[in-house]
Amino acid sequence: MELEPSRRLALVVEYDGTDYCGFQLQVALPTVQGDIESALTKVTGETIRIVGAGRTDSGVHARGQVVSFTTLSTLPPETMVRALNFYLGPGISVRSGHLAASDFDARRDALSREYRYTILNRSTPSPLERRYACFVPWRLDIDPMNAASGCLVGCHDFASFTGPTGRSTVREVHRAEVSRVGDRVYFDMVANAFLNRQVRCTVGTLIRVGLGRLGVEEFRDMIRAKKPGLASPAVPPHGLCLMRVNYQENKFSAKGQLDENL
Amino acid sequence: MELEPSRRLALVVEYDGTDYCGFQLQVALPTVQGDIESALTKVTGETIRIVGAGRTDSGVHARGQVVSFTTLSTLPPETMVRALNFYLGPGISVRSGHLAASDFDARRDALSREYRYTILNRSTPSPLERRYACFVPWRLDIDPMNAASGCLVGCHDFASFTGPTGRSTVREVHRAEVSRVGDRVYFDMVANAFLNRQVRCTVGTLIRVGLGRLGVEEFRDMIRAKKPGLASPAVPPHGLCLMRVNYQENKFSAKGQLDENL
Repeated sequence: MELEPSRRLALVVEYDGTDYCGFQLQVALPTVQGDIESALTKVTGETIRIVGAGRTDSGVHARGQVVSFTTLSTLPPETMVRALNFYLGPGISVRSGHLAASDFDARRDALSREYRYTILNRSTPSPLERRYACFVPWRLDIDPMNAASGCLVGCHDFASFTGPTGRSTVREVHRAEVSRVGDRVYFDMVANAFLNRQVRCTVGTLIRVGLGRLGVEEFRDMIRAKKPGLASPAVPPHGLCLMRVNYQENKFSAKGQLDENL
Repeated sequence: MELEPSRRLALVVEYDGTDYCGFQLQVALPTVQGDIESALTKVTGETIRIVGAGRTDSGVHARGQVVSFTTLSTLPPETMVRALNFYLGPGISVRSGHLAASDFDARRDALSREYRYTILNRSTPSPLERRYACFVPWRLDIDPMNAASGCLVGCHDFASFTGPTGRSTVREVHRAEVSRVGDRVYFDMVANAFLNRQVRCTVGTLIRVGLGRLGVEEFRDMIRAKKPGLASPAVPPHGLCLMRVNYQENKFSAKGQLDENL
């Protein structure tokens, strides 16, 4: 049925980062990339190298990671999804599969990434949330946190919110917001791309704002300083989740990427 | 400060049932009761036997289990909570502590228990929900499930929804409802008390209704038949959670039992 010798596919992937040493392939360690590539080999018989939109750190979760790869397989995407999920362990699941443009690259073509950091903000820890929320037992004041988050929006040099690096630290932030739902505090951040540990260093600093230890103006000054390591250390990875990656529609339609086909 | 030789306390407890062999004490097995009693001994130096409102099965979670016990300790309840949480492992947490009436018994005095069963209803499994939701990949029709649930409300003999037992199987159901939020389907049930595996056998049967394999009238007939084992087998325990236990206010005020004191 297929005339092309090979096809470009995109997968939307969810995983529990707890037992993974991050997304990126490492020898003799469990990684998201390693597990997906192994499953692809079992399904297609080919050796396939995937590209992921976000190289999530060890312990970071994803609900909408996107990976791309080329295959000779002519399996319909839905069948590919079922076959991969048959081989993948319980910590990872392919949510959906899509035919993509022949030059589609999940990393290079991503217009923006959406991350969420979840804080459990109450006096006692939660056994049922402990894997996916960072426990902060002191009351956080959301309003100054939100005001500080607003300073992040726009095109800025975020050198203060990552470690020393030889590359550009300029990124464009589309959205940054703090909200409270019951005893959970969410920090949502959307940007064209992220620096190493950027979200987690930002959340560490915003927590200081929420506790009244750092003012909104001091937060703004911290951005302006562009000084590596100036922000707070990174908060733990288990509160962080890559929620979604956005693309131009002609490359790979993110719209409905999590729609259900039940 | 205390004139009484001993005090009656009530604790509201949350736990992840995954690694517990149920609530009730068993020799050489991890149980919720065993862990709480061990922590109480560490805090008070006494050997204390607790009473739990609901004897949750192996693998069943709780957000609002209530336990009662007598102690000679004069620690304020809030201090008792902190001390217990210091000794308890990550799978269990005391949410709050309360002075109770001297004859308060968490089990005997409970007016009603509230359970929630969570189903993940979409085409692919979820690594991030897998511990707390039962995965059903076939589309469930909520309306007939809700209609069937309505038949449960009131005082009925629920013999069909449990195994053979020599004791009364009459229970009073205050509320039974099915709702959908995104790709989650919740079954909430409130009753004065529950039979062994009653919620899980009910959910198993409601899933058949939701798939169109059992009619609402057949469901009603199943209640009327009062025949042990007639309902579907129990669905897995990990979707079930004891949400709350209600008491008369003069015994122990459940009102605000989960309010935060941040």
